Amino acid sequence: MTERRGPTFSRRHLLATSGLATAAVVAAAATGSTDAAAAPEDSGVALPFHGAHQAGIATPEQARMVFASFDVTAAGRAGLAALLAEWSDAAEQLTTGRPLTGPGGSFAPPADTGEALDLQPSRLTLTVGFGPSLFDDRFGLAATRPAALIDLPAFPGDALDPTLTGGDICIQACADDAQVAFHAIHNLTRIGLGSATLRYLQVGFARTASSSATAAAPRNLLGFRDGTNNLVPTDEGTMDAHVWVDRHGDQAWMHGGTFLVARRIRIHLEAWDASTLGDQERTIGRAKSVGAPLGSAHERDPVDLGALDDFGAPRIPAGAHIRVASATTNHGAAILRRGYSFVDGVDPATGELDAGLFFICFQKDPGAQFVPIQRRLASQDALSTYLVHTGSGVFACPPGTAPGRPWGHGLV
Amino acid sequence: MTERRGPTFSRRHLLATSGLATAAVVAAAATGSTDAAAAPEDSGVALPFHGAHQAGIATPEQARMVFASFDVTAAGRAGLAALLAEWSDAAEQLTTGRPLTGPGGSFAPPADTGEALDLQPSRLTLTVGFGPSLFDDRFGLAATRPAALIDLPAFPGDALDPTLTGGDICIQACADDAQVAFHAIHNLTRIGLGSATLRYLQVGFARTASSSATAAAPRNLLGFRDGTNNLVPTDEGTMDAHVWVDRHGDQAWMHGGTFLVARRIRIHLEAWDASTLGDQERTIGRAKSVGAPLGSAHERDPVDLGALDDFGAPRIPAGAHIRVASATTNHGAAILRRGYSFVDGVDPATGELDAGLFFICFQKDPGAQFVPIQRRLASQDALSTYLVHTGSGVFACPPGTAPGRPWGHGLV
Repeated sequence: MTERRGPTFSRRHLLATSGLATAAVVAAAATGSTDAAAAPEDSGVALPFHGAHQAGIATPEQARMVFASFDVTAAGRAGLAALLAEWSDAAEQLTTGRPLTGPGGSFAPPADTGEALDLQPSRLTLTVGFGPSLFDDRFGLAATRPAALIDLPAFPGDALDPTLTGGDICIQACADDAQVAFHAIHNLTRIGLGSATLRYLQVGFARTASSSATAAAPRNLLGFRDGTNNLVPTDEGTMDAHVWVDRHGDQAWMHGGTFLVARRIRIHLEAWDASTLGDQERTIGRAKSVGAPLGSAHERDPVDLGALDDFGAPRIPAGAHIRVASATTNHGAAILRRGYSFVDGVDPATGELDAGLFFICFQKDPGAQFVPIQRRLASQDALSTYLVHTGSGVFACPPGTAPGRPWGHGLV
Repeated sequence: MTERRGPTFSRRHLLATSGLATAAVVAAAATGSTDAAAAPEDSGVALPFHGAHQAGIATPEQARMVFASFDVTAAGRAGLAALLAEWSDAAEQLTTGRPLTGPGGSFAPPADTGEALDLQPSRLTLTVGFGPSLFDDRFGLAATRPAALIDLPAFPGDALDPTLTGGDICIQACADDAQVAFHAIHNLTRIGLGSATLRYLQVGFARTASSSATAAAPRNLLGFRDGTNNLVPTDEGTMDAHVWVDRHGDQAWMHGGTFLVARRIRIHLEAWDASTLGDQERTIGRAKSVGAPLGSAHERDPVDLGALDDFGAPRIPAGAHIRVASATTNHGAAILRRGYSFVDGVDPATGELDAGLFFICFQKDPGAQFVPIQRRLASQDALSTYLVHTGSGVFACPPGTAPGRPWGHGLV
């Protein structure tokens, strides 16, 4: 059963919106769920929280992300279960666009922090994942750790900051409104106080709204269109083949789930910007202007890794990123990418920009998918010269929820 | 002469947009320039770069900001003048939404970094300011330093990080698209390499798109509507009275300019979230739900600082933020606020959110406007308990440009 996406509307917001916004909402609904890339940012659409799979994975990528990693401080398995159940209830309510409710009144802290009170649901999704450390001896979960939830090996070029790495639980918040995504993590953090502490939090942006009507892949901070040949998340066969854990997984509680790998990849933009257009295009393997594979004319033209130029040399060079990362080169291994650009200011040590890509991918087996691909990239990809990985995480994302089956159901 | 705002369209983007986006653009144009707060984010509108005043000050606030502070390393006044002229030319071109052009070709670095190639102009404005340190002995400008460009005094509660404070030159980039704003600063930084080094860079968001159709002020991270009683930037009399430097300023080159004060204000959200609704409302002086002044019903109701409750106590408490910050309390001193919320991750020392408000204000005389207001706030405002100022800057923003009169004209 695939996730059902349909426009639902917050009454509060429908009442509050002007004719202009209503027109936008109607237009967004008219585009249908199969063409969400062309939907305008910040619609009134609320995505269902429950489903066979968690939302935020096959969901067409929203414009904004806040990714949070937590260390759990709750006592024992009961404390962890209570935290997850409380988070799950709140997450469901948050995705509707309606404020969190509680005892209320003037003499209690507000049940909702309030910064999204005037905002629309904005296709908010909240996706939970469990890191390897959750399966240590604190919660008695060692026997339920999936075999595929490996500790990632070190890769050449890693410069991991421990404060941006790891974590017991991750929550990925994605929405078409930056404040809606932050509001969700803000409230979940508040609700978790005493049971979970923020380890890191990363803000990112993807397709920004002024490009929302184009079919082209959005551009990353390298200036290249990125994601053209990504797996198509609306293709169920593809998702079953590469992303969703099936019944052959070693842990029944992960059936219908997937594994998330997050990598905070800083780009040395100053060095990249100083390289020539020709170097940049040979490094990526595509034309910068329209994103066509070198030797082809259009962005969506198939990538022909065997094509030779007039001198008999490969049109797409041996070290080109799209060659080294391709499923062909990696014996069929493929991942669903769902990353977000970030701009976190200046590295005070160098005066250089601290900006890049918060890379997120989903797969059924990181050891067979992300790890060999990244190992190859780190040693062969011409782009790796310009990159440094400063954060890393791997998380087991359980299947979707249902009424009475909150986050952690079947595990804790 | 006021800044002229009118929708202009990039041909490239009009051709590329679908019917849906075109409808949005037409709708945006139909709302007219006097109601830009209700325009949707990421329109195709390009704002004029030239004018009597710099854009980005009286301009209705865009959704996104990237604020950059630079240290100048160019040699002498000629080097500074060349930097400013080159920046000014590039800034003008960037605001049109068209890519920067240069010698080009495969054997040169691209003249434009490319990440905004598919994006619309998005009301980009670029606003320059000169810090006190620019007027030291490096460029021979000491005699032209405006008397109003004071070094800000220390305030109670300051915890300024030197890497987030000061700078010779600031450039404020505001746009309705996060990637457009970043692209502008990215390219200006690249163009300045060798002549200017980034000191700090702050990313922020204001009215996010899903609230763009409401007339209410957007909510800050405290969850309260913020800016209800701000100066109205489209009111020329107000701007002349409080913001624009007139002919009585001591430096002719600043006539038509203004002074920018930036304060990075971190909010201790964990403490704020734990306070009761009643405490929060008394701290701000407004109802959290609709933003009405305490004792009133509607957000836009006038603030009556003399109103008493049934027990004879002020309805708006003595320490309420809106009382302490009001022009009445400050003997008529008022400032044009134009701040942006920020979320910069987690303070690794405490696990608390590093989030808050990047406060920006404009005024004709910081010593007579921002300084006494902030001094009063730091000592009397109940909200100050929850705030810490971690960055600070003051900059002289020259008047607007014209063809042949780039940034720095009349100064260098």
